[in-house]
Amino acid sequence: MQRPFTFINCAMSLDGKISTKQRHQVKISGHDDFMRMDSLRSGSDAIMVGIGTVLADDPSLTVKSKILRDERVEKGFEETPVRIIVDSLARTPLTSDIFKKGQGQIIIATSRSAPSFRVQALQEKATIITAGEKKVDLQKLALKLHDMGIKRLMVEGGATLNWGLISKDLVDEIYTFIGNMVIGGTGAPTPVDGAGFNQDELKSFRLESAEIMDAGIVLRWSAERK
Amino acid sequence: MQRPFTFINCAMSLDGKISTKQRHQVKISGHDDFMRMDSLRSGSDAIMVGIGTVLADDPSLTVKSKILRDERVEKGFEETPVRIIVDSLARTPLTSDIFKKGQGQIIIATSRSAPSFRVQALQEKATIITAGEKKVDLQKLALKLHDMGIKRLMVEGGATLNWGLISKDLVDEIYTFIGNMVIGGTGAPTPVDGAGFNQDELKSFRLESAEIMDAGIVLRWSAERK
Repeated sequence: MQRPFTFINCAMSLDGKISTKQRHQVKISGHDDFMRMDSLRSGSDAIMVGIGTVLADDPSLTVKSKILRDERVEKGFEETPVRIIVDSLARTPLTSDIFKKGQGQIIIATSRSAPSFRVQALQEKATIITAGEKKVDLQKLALKLHDMGIKRLMVEGGATLNWGLISKDLVDEIYTFIGNMVIGGTGAPTPVDGAGFNQDELKSFRLESAEIMDAGIVLRWSAERK
Repeated sequence: MQRPFTFINCAMSLDGKISTKQRHQVKISGHDDFMRMDSLRSGSDAIMVGIGTVLADDPSLTVKSKILRDERVEKGFEETPVRIIVDSLARTPLTSDIFKKGQGQIIIATSRSAPSFRVQALQEKATIITAGEKKVDLQKLALKLHDMGIKRLMVEGGATLNWGLISKDLVDEIYTFIGNMVIGGTGAPTPVDGAGFNQDELKSFRLESAEIMDAGIVLRWSAERK
């Protein structure tokens, strides 16, 4: 299947949590990791998040460094990579930061179950891609994005979207920044939630690199081809 | 407070899980990590687990390498370090592997809420330490263990005991082996569960070392002193 090269970037505490049990955001990494993330964004054709992340964190998903933005423009790209929200029921608020900051194309991927009045309202602010009945069909979406010229796709969570992509074998690499704190908490969000694999169907990766950064470490994992 | 030097050893998937959502065990590390763990056991005065781990995995907690066992004996120690189960309600089955394998002292730490008939049954097989009303008071237990001559204590989980010790500031180091697989699953067990910290009370550690091992990496974290 033709699809973009897809990688996930995430940060977790040393005990594998991405936020507190109450879903309060935690500063897990530092300045160097922030620069690394910004550079990954800048080097991608598109950045994708799930609707849960939009509702919880309202990220703008723009490239923060002016130098990196200028570099993109020099190469003939928009300042901001294409931004994509996976949003089965078209719940993205019209007041989201993603619509206020940055420029360039915004794509909202919905399913056929999304209420049409919401889809219509979002249509004025974004390109709508419909794929799947009740939930966004991520395989079809990946195919469509590839056809639109998106060859390198960065995924910034959340845990439900990460699970959807990994379980469908749509992920090539995962970067995990591991921060120097314990968060704890039964059921606190982790990088990959969803249904989870059974014992005999775990997805294997290969450790490509480990780099100490800020007060933690960044690991790069690549998917084992079957 | 006088207490043993205490370290946790755990293994998690690259997405921070210690088992599947159904609590099925997963082989996260490999031979080299197993040898590392055996050597940590052998170098400790005592090994501690929570009752949940005993009921789920029934570990014997013995030193597996004959060379390491012989080294212990040469130095005048028992072959097996003292084995400790934190078991507030004295639920340890009398048929547990811990009673069948290895020799040396076994300690069961209970609370005053443990039914006396169970405590009496266990008393024939283990030393009973009572500390705390409804749950084992881990601070008191640590003090008693220190008084008994235990200076170096290895903790092998589970997630509830890890939380109890970390939240009471009773942990000096944490080893995390990170394996090359995604397990996924909302609510799948992680290295530290329990109540969890709030945003403003996270426990900080310092990354002391990172060593690539088997198909993953071992990180050693030391508690930041306040």
